[in-house]
Amino acid sequence: MIDLNSDLGESFGAWRVGDDEAMFAVVSSANVACGFHAGDPLTMAESVGRAARHGVALGAHPGYRDLVGFGRRALDTSPAEVAAELLAQLGALDGIARGSGLRVRYVKAHGALYHRLASDDAAAHAFAEAVARYDPTLPLLGPPSSALERAADAAGLRFAREAFVDRGYVADGSLVPRGEPGAIVDDPAAAAERALELAETGGIAADDGSRVELAPDSLCLHGDTPGAVAMARAVRDALEAAGVEIRAFA
Amino acid sequence: MIDLNSDLGESFGAWRVGDDEAMFAVVSSANVACGFHAGDPLTMAESVGRAARHGVALGAHPGYRDLVGFGRRALDTSPAEVAAELLAQLGALDGIARGSGLRVRYVKAHGALYHRLASDDAAAHAFAEAVARYDPTLPLLGPPSSALERAADAAGLRFAREAFVDRGYVADGSLVPRGEPGAIVDDPAAAAERALELAETGGIAADDGSRVELAPDSLCLHGDTPGAVAMARAVRDALEAAGVEIRAFA
Amino acid sequence: MIDLNSDLGESFGAWRVGDDEAMFAVVSSANVACGFHAGDPLTMAESVGRAARHGVALGAHPGYRDLVGFGRRALDTSPAEVAAELLAQLGALDGIARGSGLRVRYVKAHGALYHRLASDDAAAHAFAEAVARYDPTLPLLGPPSSALERAADAAGLRFAREAFVDRGYVADGSLVPRGEPGAIVDDPAAAAERALELAETGGIAADDGSRVELAPDSLCLHGDTPGAVAMARAVRDALEAAGVEIRAFA
Amino acid sequence: MIDLNSDLGESFGAWRVGDDEAMFAVVSSANVACGFHAGDPLTMAESVGRAARHGVALGAHPGYRDLVGFGRRALDTSPAEVAAELLAQLGALDGIARGSGLRVRYVKAHGALYHRLASDDAAAHAFAEAVARYDPTLPLLGPPSSALERAADAAGLRFAREAFVDRGYVADGSLVPRGEPGAIVDDPAAAAERALELAETGGIAADDGSRVELAPDSLCLHGDTPGAVAMARAVRDALEAAGVEIRAFA
Repeated sequence: MIDLNSDLGESFGAWRVGDDEAMFAVVSSANVACGFHAGDPLTMAESVGRAARHGVALGAHPGYRDLVGFGRRALDTSPAEVAAELLAQLGALDGIARGSGLRVRYVKAHGALYHRLASDDAAAHAFAEAVARYDPTLPLLGPPSSALERAADAAGLRFAREAFVDRGYVADGSLVPRGEPGAIVDDPAAAAERALELAETGGIAADDGSRVELAPDSLCLHGDTPGAVAMARAVRDALEAAGVEIRAFA
Repeated sequence: MIDLNSDLGESFGAWRVGDDEAMFAVVSSANVACGFHAGDPLTMAESVGRAARHGVALGAHPGYRDLVGFGRRALDTSPAEVAAELLAQLGALDGIARGSGLRVRYVKAHGALYHRLASDDAAAHAFAEAVARYDPTLPLLGPPSSALERAADAAGLRFAREAFVDRGYVADGSLVPRGEPGAIVDDPAAAAERALELAETGGIAADDGSRVELAPDSLCLHGDTPGAVAMARAVRDALEAAGVEIRAFA
Repeated sequence: MIDLNSDLGESFGAWRVGDDEAMFAVVSSANVACGFHAGDPLTMAESVGRAARHGVALGAHPGYRDLVGFGRRALDTSPAEVAAELLAQLGALDGIARGSGLRVRYVKAHGALYHRLASDDAAAHAFAEAVARYDPTLPLLGPPSSALERAADAAGLRFAREAFVDRGYVADGSLVPRGEPGAIVDDPAAAAERALELAETGGIAADDGSRVELAPDSLCLHGDTPGAVAMARAVRDALEAAGVEIRAFA
Repeated sequence: MIDLNSDLGESFGAWRVGDDEAMFAVVSSANVACGFHAGDPLTMAESVGRAARHGVALGAHPGYRDLVGFGRRALDTSPAEVAAELLAQLGALDGIARGSGLRVRYVKAHGALYHRLASDDAAAHAFAEAVARYDPTLPLLGPPSSALERAADAAGLRFAREAFVDRGYVADGSLVPRGEPGAIVDDPAAAAERALELAETGGIAADDGSRVELAPDSLCLHGDTPGAVAMARAVRDALEAAGVEIRAFA
């Protein structure tokens, strides 16, 4: 049993990105942008509707307040800002979900905030504690063995670990940096094979041939690249063919 | 018994407006900006803290997505946008409130959106229905005999009527337009006297000498003008001296 | 001789729209978004580079400050705001152009502002006078017989008239409203034929069969619809095959 | 002879900050926000009008695209973004200035960007080269012996050095960090005395008693603190009483 998650709902106003309708049909969990790095109220409402129709778990996907940089640029916010901005974004998406009888079921950070929470303990604690005050039953989704995992533990939140099916891993569990050989897996069959290995064994071969144990609860599929839908479909098909159940972790 | 409400929490980032600390000590209900026309997550968190400390009812004060215009400019949004933007704003403030163990207790629209909801039935219905889907126990605060009052009735929401202590009224219950004689009452004693008449009789003299029945549940005090605190204090003191209890309507 | 213009450079941050590289190869004038409804500094710089490489006249394409609405929603700004926002947008694009040795050569308004300037004399005068103060040699591009044409005349600016090759016309010179029969011409061959008639005769058949005289200096091609490039290419090919020279009006 | 500069025009929409009218009467150079960290087109137009009326040199004061953080938070932009965002901001203010017959006469960066340009050579070169391509006669104003000074030299731009009358200096020429003893000079008379020493000798005593040579072309006065106007006025009066001419460096 494994979860498949993807960053979706990342359009903004007239600008559309990704084939969300197709991706919602493949994943079990949708990380939906909450308006700070992408997403606007109508787009969020559209994503909530898709989550309901496809029976997909709705996740809040908060990022930095940086539309033009799509939340990918490091921004020096204080822990208090991290917490307040998280609550505003989580509440906004949950508000729209409540307006349709749904609820946000988990939280996964986006972009530069995601990377920061992997190693910045003060920010990770502020983030996890804010989620716990909002609703202590909401799990966090993020990278294994990260500052965020430790912060979730400290805040009494469940932490779900994710692995990437289309990224190479270094022996220490980090990702092979983009631009280096083996960083990206773009062949759907190869990605599907990796997904199966991760789902069945919890680990994967690192770039030096050693084995990395990740014990993922969820596999992350990219939703906005060319070929995203084909790869996501290939991964899901391979998992189902092998008898692995696709189910939301939350 | 009457409620005193004021638009508060309308700072943004480094820009501060109004003496919120003093105003929170006077009102019983605070209409707090939710980030679209004013307010940012840290400012909202600050207002939530003040509402908790002063025992003031926290109201969501959604407006148009127009920071530079402070939500005062008419903006042609669809009813679907009105609903989705309301939910995003209500949810954002409620999210920050939940993070402090509080909850939003009512909703009052801001600026150009407030004026539109007084007469635009389609927008008013979209607004009221969205609030009802979010939480059917949340009352709306707004102008008496408005499209919004009708929409609240239709949506099964409680509607609280507000009157202005520092604005003149026309015989039909509308406000004397700014710029015309009698539009503004800027003497604290005169405002206090009007507040008392409104609280005790439910009506007030219009500019032609006739009597307007408003039956207000709440009196609105402006929070960002010079002299705002003095007038608010004068109104509260006069009401209390006359034995009128100041209590949140929500 | 005729000009071909299109709205280009309307991406924003990570969100890309239209095949600008292909469209810059077809048009003689590019209306480039200036950051208020679309466009950001890097996107503007990219468009300036394309204008230089393709020998296309660079036009400023200012709109309302409304990213989420793409400048398509009516927004109640004062004439003073219309003028100041025009100058900020024109200056921003011209600044980036100057940084590459180019200059803005004309101005065409976008979306809801375009429509407003067609009939709102006060706004049109504020707009035209601001352009004239910035640089009295800059022409305006807009709809024939509009408030903006009158304002350009009054401000001593050259006014270039545009016609749409893919929209039907009513006998009074206005466009057949979207949604009504004959509003949209989506067949490239039909659009090319209309372009040729407009270029050679200055007029076109209205929806009631009567003839509308538009005397266009420029034909507008849409850049962001499916099939936009094919239609633009068909129009240009038909004009060139008939011996009509494609040349920037500015 | 010395210049007095201040960051002005830092209001945004309805949010007003500082007593600009009083400060424009004291300074010889105004660093005017260009819309990314503060300022909007109407506010810029107001500042341009004040610069014209008071005979003050108009400076562009570009910052990071971060309204809520007032441009004070580090933001990881590329050198290409630094250049393009500078040109957009410089052009916007210059556009509004041209609309009133004025021109921007120099450039000084704001907040976190100012600090970055003091030490980040790649960003400083991108910034200076963009200004040089816009107009090679525009000087830069900034901290002495900084990466920006070197970049200005390399780009062939004049560089004007500024010193702070109300901040303590360390022996290496850097500022005593806020929060440490001697960081802030808040007595107008003390500030005036320091201004006079800086203007007459080019140097000042550091916090360890040693002497720092700054050779300033301009003294920076803060415009948005309580007492800002009184301190600015005291500085100007002391300089004039000592026969130092106050004159724009640009």
